[in-house]
Amino acid sequence: MCGIIGFTGGREAQSILLDGLSSLEYRGYDSAGISYFGADGKIHIRKTIGKVKDLRAICDDENSATCGIGHTRWATHGGVTTTNAHPHRVGRVSLIHNGIIENYHELVKEYHLESDLKSDTDTEVAAALLNHFYEEDPKEAIRKTVALVKGTYGFCIMFQDFPNTIFSIRSVSPLVATHCEAGSFIASDLTAFIEFSKEYFIVPEGHILTLTKDAIEVETLEGVSVNPEYMTVDWDVTAAQKDGYPHYMIKEIHEQPQAILRTITPRIKNGLPFFEDDQIPDSFFEGVTDITIIACGTAMYAGMVGKTMIQNRLQIPVTVTIASEFRYEMPILSKNSMVIAVSQSGETIDTLEALRLASKYTDRTISLVNVKGSSIARESHYALYTHAGPEIAVASTKAYTVQCATMYLLACKLGLSLGKMSEADAKEFIKTLESVPDYIEAVIAKASDVEQLTRQMINSEHTFFIGRGLDYTLTMEGALKLKEISYIHAESYAAGELKHGTIALIAEGVPVIAVATQKHVYSKTISNIREVKARGAYVILLSMDEKITDDSICDVHISLPQVPDEFAIFEAVVILQLIAYYTSVGKGLNPDQPRNLAKSVTVE
Amino acid sequence: MCGIIGFTGGREAQSILLDGLSSLEYRGYDSAGISYFGADGKIHIRKTIGKVKDLRAICDDENSATCGIGHTRWATHGGVTTTNAHPHRVGRVSLIHNGIIENYHELVKEYHLESDLKSDTDTEVAAALLNHFYEEDPKEAIRKTVALVKGTYGFCIMFQDFPNTIFSIRSVSPLVATHCEAGSFIASDLTAFIEFSKEYFIVPEGHILTLTKDAIEVETLEGVSVNPEYMTVDWDVTAAQKDGYPHYMIKEIHEQPQAILRTITPRIKNGLPFFEDDQIPDSFFEGVTDITIIACGTAMYAGMVGKTMIQNRLQIPVTVTIASEFRYEMPILSKNSMVIAVSQSGETIDTLEALRLASKYTDRTISLVNVKGSSIARESHYALYTHAGPEIAVASTKAYTVQCATMYLLACKLGLSLGKMSEADAKEFIKTLESVPDYIEAVIAKASDVEQLTRQMINSEHTFFIGRGLDYTLTMEGALKLKEISYIHAESYAAGELKHGTIALIAEGVPVIAVATQKHVYSKTISNIREVKARGAYVILLSMDEKITDDSICDVHISLPQVPDEFAIFEAVVILQLIAYYTSVGKGLNPDQPRNLAKSVTVE
Repeated sequence: MCGIIGFTGGREAQSILLDGLSSLEYRGYDSAGISYFGADGKIHIRKTIGKVKDLRAICDDENSATCGIGHTRWATHGGVTTTNAHPHRVGRVSLIHNGIIENYHELVKEYHLESDLKSDTDTEVAAALLNHFYEEDPKEAIRKTVALVKGTYGFCIMFQDFPNTIFSIRSVSPLVATHCEAGSFIASDLTAFIEFSKEYFIVPEGHILTLTKDAIEVETLEGVSVNPEYMTVDWDVTAAQKDGYPHYMIKEIHEQPQAILRTITPRIKNGLPFFEDDQIPDSFFEGVTDITIIACGTAMYAGMVGKTMIQNRLQIPVTVTIASEFRYEMPILSKNSMVIAVSQSGETIDTLEALRLASKYTDRTISLVNVKGSSIARESHYALYTHAGPEIAVASTKAYTVQCATMYLLACKLGLSLGKMSEADAKEFIKTLESVPDYIEAVIAKASDVEQLTRQMINSEHTFFIGRGLDYTLTMEGALKLKEISYIHAESYAAGELKHGTIALIAEGVPVIAVATQKHVYSKTISNIREVKARGAYVILLSMDEKITDDSICDVHISLPQVPDEFAIFEAVVILQLIAYYTSVGKGLNPDQPRNLAKSVTVE
Repeated sequence: MCGIIGFTGGREAQSILLDGLSSLEYRGYDSAGISYFGADGKIHIRKTIGKVKDLRAICDDENSATCGIGHTRWATHGGVTTTNAHPHRVGRVSLIHNGIIENYHELVKEYHLESDLKSDTDTEVAAALLNHFYEEDPKEAIRKTVALVKGTYGFCIMFQDFPNTIFSIRSVSPLVATHCEAGSFIASDLTAFIEFSKEYFIVPEGHILTLTKDAIEVETLEGVSVNPEYMTVDWDVTAAQKDGYPHYMIKEIHEQPQAILRTITPRIKNGLPFFEDDQIPDSFFEGVTDITIIACGTAMYAGMVGKTMIQNRLQIPVTVTIASEFRYEMPILSKNSMVIAVSQSGETIDTLEALRLASKYTDRTISLVNVKGSSIARESHYALYTHAGPEIAVASTKAYTVQCATMYLLACKLGLSLGKMSEADAKEFIKTLESVPDYIEAVIAKASDVEQLTRQMINSEHTFFIGRGLDYTLTMEGALKLKEISYIHAESYAAGELKHGTIALIAEGVPVIAVATQKHVYSKTISNIREVKARGAYVILLSMDEKITDDSICDVHISLPQVPDEFAIFEAVVILQLIAYYTSVGKGLNPDQPRNLAKSVTVE
C-alpha cells in the first residue's frame, strides 16, 4: 500500500504532487506529505496525519518548486502520527517508501543509526542508511543500501546536493514512470499522471532511475543503461471520474453490465469461447487434471465462485488458496495442474509471490487481471485481461463480476477441451452468459428497494450472510463488502454450518442476509433460515421466487429474475453490493474510502 | 437437536423425566415439557419456555404417574413460545419429536389438518396426522404417518387409550433405549438414564418400539419382531459430574492431558502407531492418493489442523469440506481416496449423511468419534474412537484436542505406509506426541494469567484471531470458542489476509489474538501484527518466545513451552479455550449452556 509520486519538470510541482496524491489516495490515507527543492535550494517537507485535503491545507498557496516527491501512507510499522508520515529526512537525504523493510531492527543496530531516527517507521532506517553511505555519489549510496535491505520497496529519493533530481529504485512494490512534455513523472500507479501522459513504462525491478527535467535514465546496478519499454493506456482520465454519481462505488456498480460485455464479447466466436486473441493455445487446456486458484480478498471470493461452479460442472478438483498462505506452504502441483492467479491490480504482492512459487511446478499458469502489463500478468504464462476499466472505489464491485464472468468463460473452454461439456451445452452456457448483463440491468433497477431495507442494517453491530453451494461462496463476497465500507461485523456462513456454534450470536433483530437461488438445496436453506428466524433474526432473503408469502421465513424478500442456477450469482451479487453501499451511506460514511484500507495491497 | 426421554416402570416418572431432561439440556434449552398418564387415566401436559429448572418449578410436588415423556427443545420451526414447546397433543395423541419434518406444509393441506393446529411447529402436524389415522391400532397409525412424513425424526408417542405405554420410531435422529430393573427407558442419549442402567441399545431406524413396564418390543414396519443388540457403556455417572469445578467446561479443559493419554497410549507400540486393536488393517493405508475430511463446527476445525499438518508432512492433497456442503455437491473421490469423518457425538446428521454419500465412492472411510456404537462409527468402514470421556459443556474442548491427537497418529501411520516418513522420523514424531500431555499441563498452569488478560475482552464487540499456516487453522477454533460462549463476534483470519478488507474493522482497543508459533512464517506474522497495532488494536500474542520486549508488537505476550512447530497447536489451543472460558465467566454468562446452542446437532 501507500501511494508514491515524484515529479521534476518545467511546471510548478506542488499542485501536480497534490493532485497526483489525491488520485493515489485509494492506496492509503492515514497521513500524507511532500518534499521539494525550495527557492533556497534546500529540501523542504510538509506532512500531516489525515488525508490529502489536510495536507493541501498546510501547503503554501504559492510555491515555485519544480521538483518534489509526495506520499500518502497506509501505516504498517508505527502508528498514525505526523512524525511517522513520509517523506522522511536524515541528513542530506529525503525519501518516500512503499513496502516493508523487514530487517530494519538489525540494520539500526549494525550501523548504529539510533541517533538518526525520530520516527517508529522502517522507512526512516532506509533514509538513515542512505545518508550513512552517501558521500558524493547517490547511486553508490543506493547500491550499498539495497544490498543490505531485506523486504519490499519502491523508493523515491532526493539528495540535497542534486537539486531537481529524483532517484528511484524498486523491489516488488509497483512503480510506473514516464517522461513527457511536462517533465518526468514516477508514481505507484499511472492514474497519478495520466492527465499528462497516456504513455508510460513499468519500472524494472532492481534498476536505478534518475529523473531530471529532460529525461529519465534507467540503469542496472552494474551501471548498464537500459531503454524502458513504453506502453499506452487504453482509457483516459474521464473513465476515472465520478460522472454525476455521488460515489465511485455506485458508479462502478452501474458499470457492471458494460464491463462484462467488454470482457466477454471479444472472447466469444460462433457462440463458443475463443481465446486466440489472447494468444492462449488450446494445448494449454488439454490434459488439465486439477486447478488451483490463488488470490486475496475479493478476488479470492471470485475464485470461490469459480471453484464451486467448475468442480460441479466439470468434476475436476479445484482448490482455492489464500495467496498469503499458499506462498509459505508446500504446494501440491503437477505439470498438469492449472494455476489461476486473480488480482484486479495485478500487483497484489502475496498473489504475485504465490504465482512465482506455483510457476516452479507448472507451466500452466494463467492470470485474470485488470491492469495491462502488471507484474502478475507479465509473470504468468498467459494473461486473460478483464476489461472492467479503472476501478477507483476501494471496495471492488465491477472487478469482481468480470473476474467471475471470465472464470465462467475459462470453465467453458476447459470443459470443451476436456470433453466434459458438449458443444451444445457450451453454446447454451455461453448464451446465458451473454444475457447476464441484461439481467444485471434489471437487478440494478431495484436499487431504491435496497436503499429502503438497509435502514434496519444501519444500527447493527453484527450481520450474518448465509447460503449453500454457489450461494455460500457468493455470500463471502457480500459479507466482505459490508465489512469493508460499513464497519459492521459481517460474516458469511454455509447455511448448514451456522448452528455449529455461531448461532449463539443470533439475537432479536440481528440481520441475516440469506441467498437461496440454488434449487437442489433450496428447502434445506429455508430450514436454516427458519432456525435463525425462530431466534429473532431480521431476515432478508434473495431468491428467484416471484413472491414469498410465508412471513415465518423472512422479513424482506428480494426477487431475482429467473436464470439457470449457475448464473444467479451475477444477479445476487448486485443486491449484496447495493446493501453494502446504502448501509455505508446511511451511516454517514464515505464508501469510497473505508478506514484502514488501501486498494491494491503491495505489502505482505 | 432437542432432547427426548420416555419412561414407563415401577417408579414415579416425573422426577426421572425431569432429571433425565437436565442431563439432556445440552441438546437444547429454549423450552421444556413433559406429559404423563395421570391418576385419572388421562394424559396431562406441563410445559414452559425456558430451561428444565423452569419446568420443574411448574410441576406438582406430588405426582404418582409412572409413565411419561419429556422434551427439551432447540427451536427449528416457530419461535420460542410455550405453545410451540413439546409435548404436543392432538385429540387422543401426545407426542415429542426431535428432527425436522420438511413437508409439513403439504401434509397440512392434503389432510386438512389446519383446525387441529395451535402451534407453528412441524411437530404438531405429526401429532395431528397420527390422530387422523388413529382408530384402534397405534402401530397402524404410526405406519401410515411415517409413510407420508419426509424429514428426520425421533418420535415418542402416547395414545390416550393405551395407558402406561410409549410408542416410538426414529429416522436418522438418535435414540437409545433400555429395559432394566426400574422399567423401560428411551432417550436421545444414554446420559439421561445411565443412573439406572449401563446397558443400552441403539434404536434401529424405521422400527416401531412399544415400551411397557415389563419389556420393550421392537418390530419392523412389517410386524417382524427384532431382538435389539445391547451394549455396555464404559464410563459411569460420576464422569459426567462437575467434580468441584465451577463449570463443566473448565473441568474438561483440565481433563485434556488425561484424555489425550487415554486416546493415544493404546495405539502406540514400540514407539510407532499401532491400530490393530482397532481392527484397521495396513491395507487401509496403502495406496491412498488423497484425503477428504468431512465434519462440522469444532470437529471441522480439528480437520483443518489435520489438513495443514498432513499436507505439509506427507505432500498428499487433503481437502476439508463442511459436511452440510459436501452432501449436496458432487464429490470428487476415487477408490483410493481416504475419507475421514470427524464428530464428537457420532450423530451429527450432516456428517453422517456426508459419510453415506462418500461411501458410494470409496471403501476407505474412517471415523473419529467419541461415542461407541454411534451412527457415524457404525456406518464408516473403520472407527477410531477418541477417548475423551463424556463431554458435557456445549463448547467442545477435550473432544477437539483428542481429535487433533488422533489425526496426528493417523497421519504418522499413513506416512509410514506410503513411505513418506521414515521409521526414525515416525518415532521422533510419536515421542513428541506422547509428551504433549505434559506440555498441556504446563500451559494450564497459566490459567490465572489468562483470567487477568480477559478483562480487556469483556467489553469488546469484535475480536479477531490471526495466524499463518497451522496457527491460522488453530485460530478458527479459538474464534469459534469465544463466539459460542461469550457472544463476542470473533473471527479468524489468515494473518496475511486481514488487510484485504477486514482490517477496516480494526479500531482503537479492538482485541486481536495472534498466534505465532510457526518459525518459517514468524516474521511475516509479526509484520501483520504491526499493521493492526498501528491501527490501535489491543494485541494478545501467543508464541514460543520466552519474552517479547518490543511493545510495538503486542500488549500481552503469552509464552508457550518450546516444542517442534507442528505440536504447538496443542499448547496454544488451551490458552484460546481459557480466553473463551474466562471471557464468558467475566461477562456473567454460563459457559456450559450458551444461548441457542445444542451439543450434538441432529438436524440439518
